Amino acid sequence: MKSIKIVTAAMLAIGDELLSGRTKDKNIAYLADFLTVHGIDLKEVRIVADEQSAIVAAVNALRQSYDLVFTSGGIGPTHDDITAGAIAAAFEVPIDHDPKAVEILEKYYMGTDYELTPARMRMARIPEGASLIANSISGAPGFKLENVHVMAGVPPIFQAMLAEVSPTLAGGTKMLSEAIDCPFGEGTIGDPLAEIQKQNPETAIGSYPRREGGRFTTQLVVKSRNVKALDKAMGEIRNMLDKLAKQ
Amino acid sequence: MKSIKIVTAAMLAIGDELLSGRTKDKNIAYLADFLTVHGIDLKEVRIVADEQSAIVAAVNALRQSYDLVFTSGGIGPTHDDITAGAIAAAFEVPIDHDPKAVEILEKYYMGTDYELTPARMRMARIPEGASLIANSISGAPGFKLENVHVMAGVPPIFQAMLAEVSPTLAGGTKMLSEAIDCPFGEGTIGDPLAEIQKQNPETAIGSYPRREGGRFTTQLVVKSRNVKALDKAMGEIRNMLDKLAKQ
Repeated sequence: MKSIKIVTAAMLAIGDELLSGRTKDKNIAYLADFLTVHGIDLKEVRIVADEQSAIVAAVNALRQSYDLVFTSGGIGPTHDDITAGAIAAAFEVPIDHDPKAVEILEKYYMGTDYELTPARMRMARIPEGASLIANSISGAPGFKLENVHVMAGVPPIFQAMLAEVSPTLAGGTKMLSEAIDCPFGEGTIGDPLAEIQKQNPETAIGSYPRREGGRFTTQLVVKSRNVKALDKAMGEIRNMLDKLAKQ
Repeated sequence: MKSIKIVTAAMLAIGDELLSGRTKDKNIAYLADFLTVHGIDLKEVRIVADEQSAIVAAVNALRQSYDLVFTSGGIGPTHDDITAGAIAAAFEVPIDHDPKAVEILEKYYMGTDYELTPARMRMARIPEGASLIANSISGAPGFKLENVHVMAGVPPIFQAMLAEVSPTLAGGTKMLSEAIDCPFGEGTIGDPLAEIQKQNPETAIGSYPRREGGRFTTQLVVKSRNVKALDKAMGEIRNMLDKLAKQ
């Protein structure tokens, strides 16, 4: 029996616009998929406003509770981009223009029609002790401080930064997952499914109701880090569905 | 000068499927829009798994920090629907079949081809002291305990329950908001915009970068509870954009 390694993660999405409904977040679902592929369990997500006290409280809670933390948003050049300063405050370290980050910005803007304004120079402010996360799209880097990865909120840049950190992430034993579409509503399968869950403690069986055309159907998802346990539970669920179909 | 009343809210979305990427949440953005219309400030969102300890910790943190809390998910008939029990645990009150909820389910299922199975009866388990939130779509109610509104995760049902609680929500002074599309990137407007924000402390000016066709544009959003302050800041932003367009 192989030993099982579990790596946990949390995400902190930062931005007033996500809380006012003005912007529909796209990064949470992307990160969720990304981490699942890497065998990392996303355990919690928080969304907070562009307020230093809220960011500090959330980052400190999450970085102490989970192996990895990923943030999105608030690292651009405008006055409401306060994430870098808030991360420095959370770690109680100073923040200043980072020579490597300045060099990256100088090179990047040299190749464009834009000037490296004081506003853009804000994007070179990096907390002491952090390492940079390259931004292959628009120059200005994210950064990593201990287990916290600080990334942009604009989805293509968030995704490019994730690709950058991807090789550095040590994943855990992969969670295996199989899904089965079930034509019955949850109320119909609830009792026998609960019994199958009880008999298969090495699996987590999820039941996700859908309402389509005025009636409920269900998607059943079985997850396990042990392929034999997964197969056994899936077999029992198929038997249950066969029996219900004959009733 | 009218006095300003601020009402704060938080959301807790519950469900493994949101964290694995299997389901893209639709309720957060809907609630964000809904609360904005009601003059209620959504200040924080959390997403946690179907684990009692995670739900209890999040509910207790949020209900003590904000005026109103709204949860989604985990109140269906299957074994992985553990929200009602977790809310009871968070409030340290007992939970049992609620006579009114049982009556609702009996009436609802009498009108359908389905039986009121033990699994479906789970949906009548309501923490002591809670009042019910009607479900105009599929019978099984949500509930309200003190400032916490516990609702379904299936989006049409979540929305129907929100409509139900809507008349009971005392909103605050409405946050006014105006947006302006700006053809410049954040790096270009960052410095003059920071100055405008400094001169207009009664407003919150947000800057939201978009990357389209390989270049950045920005949406600027000015928010204030004071219409005169809003108009003044918007005028200064329009002047700034005119000046930049002439450069």
